[in-house]
Amino acid sequence: MKTKKLINDGAAAVDEMLAGILAAHPRHLRVVEGSPRSIVANEGPRPGKVGLVIGGGSGHEPTFLGFVGKGLADAAAIGNVFASPPPDPIIECAKAVDGGAGVLFMYGNYAGDVMNFDMAAEMLAMDDIEARTVLTTDDVASAPIEQRERRRGVAGNVFIFKAAGAACDLMYSLDEVERVARWANDRTYTMGVALSPCSLPQTLKPNFQLGDDEMEIGMGIHGEPGVARGPLKPADQVTSELLDRILGEMKAERGDRVAVLVNSLGSTPLMELYIMMRKVKMMLDAAGIEIHLSLVGNYCTSLEMAGASITLMHLDDELQRLIDHPCDCVMFRSGEASR
Amino acid sequence: MKTKKLINDGAAAVDEMLAGILAAHPRHLRVVEGSPRSIVANEGPRPGKVGLVIGGGSGHEPTFLGFVGKGLADAAAIGNVFASPPPDPIIECAKAVDGGAGVLFMYGNYAGDVMNFDMAAEMLAMDDIEARTVLTTDDVASAPIEQRERRRGVAGNVFIFKAAGAACDLMYSLDEVERVARWANDRTYTMGVALSPCSLPQTLKPNFQLGDDEMEIGMGIHGEPGVARGPLKPADQVTSELLDRILGEMKAERGDRVAVLVNSLGSTPLMELYIMMRKVKMMLDAAGIEIHLSLVGNYCTSLEMAGASITLMHLDDELQRLIDHPCDCVMFRSGEASR
Repeated sequence: MKTKKLINDGAAAVDEMLAGILAAHPRHLRVVEGSPRSIVANEGPRPGKVGLVIGGGSGHEPTFLGFVGKGLADAAAIGNVFASPPPDPIIECAKAVDGGAGVLFMYGNYAGDVMNFDMAAEMLAMDDIEARTVLTTDDVASAPIEQRERRRGVAGNVFIFKAAGAACDLMYSLDEVERVARWANDRTYTMGVALSPCSLPQTLKPNFQLGDDEMEIGMGIHGEPGVARGPLKPADQVTSELLDRILGEMKAERGDRVAVLVNSLGSTPLMELYIMMRKVKMMLDAAGIEIHLSLVGNYCTSLEMAGASITLMHLDDELQRLIDHPCDCVMFRSGEASR
Repeated sequence: MKTKKLINDGAAAVDEMLAGILAAHPRHLRVVEGSPRSIVANEGPRPGKVGLVIGGGSGHEPTFLGFVGKGLADAAAIGNVFASPPPDPIIECAKAVDGGAGVLFMYGNYAGDVMNFDMAAEMLAMDDIEARTVLTTDDVASAPIEQRERRRGVAGNVFIFKAAGAACDLMYSLDEVERVARWANDRTYTMGVALSPCSLPQTLKPNFQLGDDEMEIGMGIHGEPGVARGPLKPADQVTSELLDRILGEMKAERGDRVAVLVNSLGSTPLMELYIMMRKVKMMLDAAGIEIHLSLVGNYCTSLEMAGASITLMHLDDELQRLIDHPCDCVMFRSGEASR
């Protein structure tokens, strides 16, 4: 059985999506001339400001394009579904947003993205544009804590990009933006659970199989294997399993503050996310941890995959200020769904 | 086969969701003491302002609670999944937001809601609170245009509530708010398409059946029968069928302006919505109709139903001003995803 999708031609889906995004949001976003997979915030880049370029495969919307806008990322380089963009659109993004203060690349830690962004950075160096990189590695399930640098980047991107984008908007130097970005990543933890697969527009076939009563804890946003497969449990128990693992690593003390994201992987509705949020709040209350800000909804998806993830960012005063800094993106405004 | 959901107990799902919403958004929302299904905007109601009370069944999130906040609705009365709230929580909402200038009830035209809101209005009259009603009837497929008053209210609610909520925030009189609300409803048209069913938390069984390669044009947000069932067509063709029907009724002239909403019924991802948005833009360009504002995403859902709807609001200067008026709701901010 093929998955039903409202598309025209699987091979054209990403470009037609981008055309729709530009049609819907012309005052916020523009495409770099001659580089249709390089999308720039109209009001983002400016002289003397570090340019923040994010990007990666499509299919995770609103990640990445939804986070391009004043106060957050300046540009996104867009790949095919679940595939890294090649170096060219990354280079064009960097050139378009370079304000003379350097460029920071931020994206999830996946081999294809690392290869292409690194290649772009090397080529930009020849044009005297300094491009540094901070990889996001918030997915707790994807490698042990001792090998944090091997972990994948997932929904925590939202908070990590947000902190770095605010630092750019506040005219921090490239050194300082890089420091903030690394710190934001170090303090951000995500655990997810998958209930059913998605299918790519080109194949319309499920990208993995799960039994009719099964869930998989820790599955990645491209269907990468997780850490435990078993029968679906009640939401409170699933939430506990995810959050216990995060809290075990985070080492928060009573009185500490966090930003919370309860994210749908695609088709899991708000009703279920808020049921999980209820349990998150109960557990954080019990631990004496204060919720400074909550986001609940579709922030980092895997097309129509069913499932959810929980992210905590362990705030300090600086991260809190940066997370609260206003931003104006087409699919995200600071304060939206928050507090 | 049962649908997998991240819930605890189907019968408790709505109350646990509300607990999660209040846990996530304590600065925006509060519950009326002693009336757990009556949720009020912290910064909405004030003396001399008409109070706007919306509501209906759960399962359509972010409709209705997502649209409670300063500049939009003052309160929402929350029913069980796909079921009207009884009169009591409606009455408590009205009392909580009454600023002495009267209250307007706005909700989709469904028999159960009409019965319960009307009963609430009668009982409020005994307490000298004037509660008037404007039903939303934007679902083009649900009855012929000659019987517009029989049509159901669906995703167009977002624009219709928005216009009325802005009028309240601008301190219009009850007569004027009612006039604006009726005018907003008269100018708003929605057509949807369903690709797959959802299932209720209590039953975990699909609420209707559709063939593996079928779609149904015009199906309602509770699975009410549509106007045409047939093989799934390419997105451009589906979009044309929906929009042609809207444009046939709307009678716009070249140079007219509209607000556009491309809405997911639940599990249809942003990629598909933006592919539809691309075609909407092409068709409106061809008709010489200007898009003033676009919303694309999950605004009025049917749990995890797959499918989408297209809404146009035919703007005039007044409606445009009201739609642009700022609002601050937990799941919607004016300007978000727009323009």
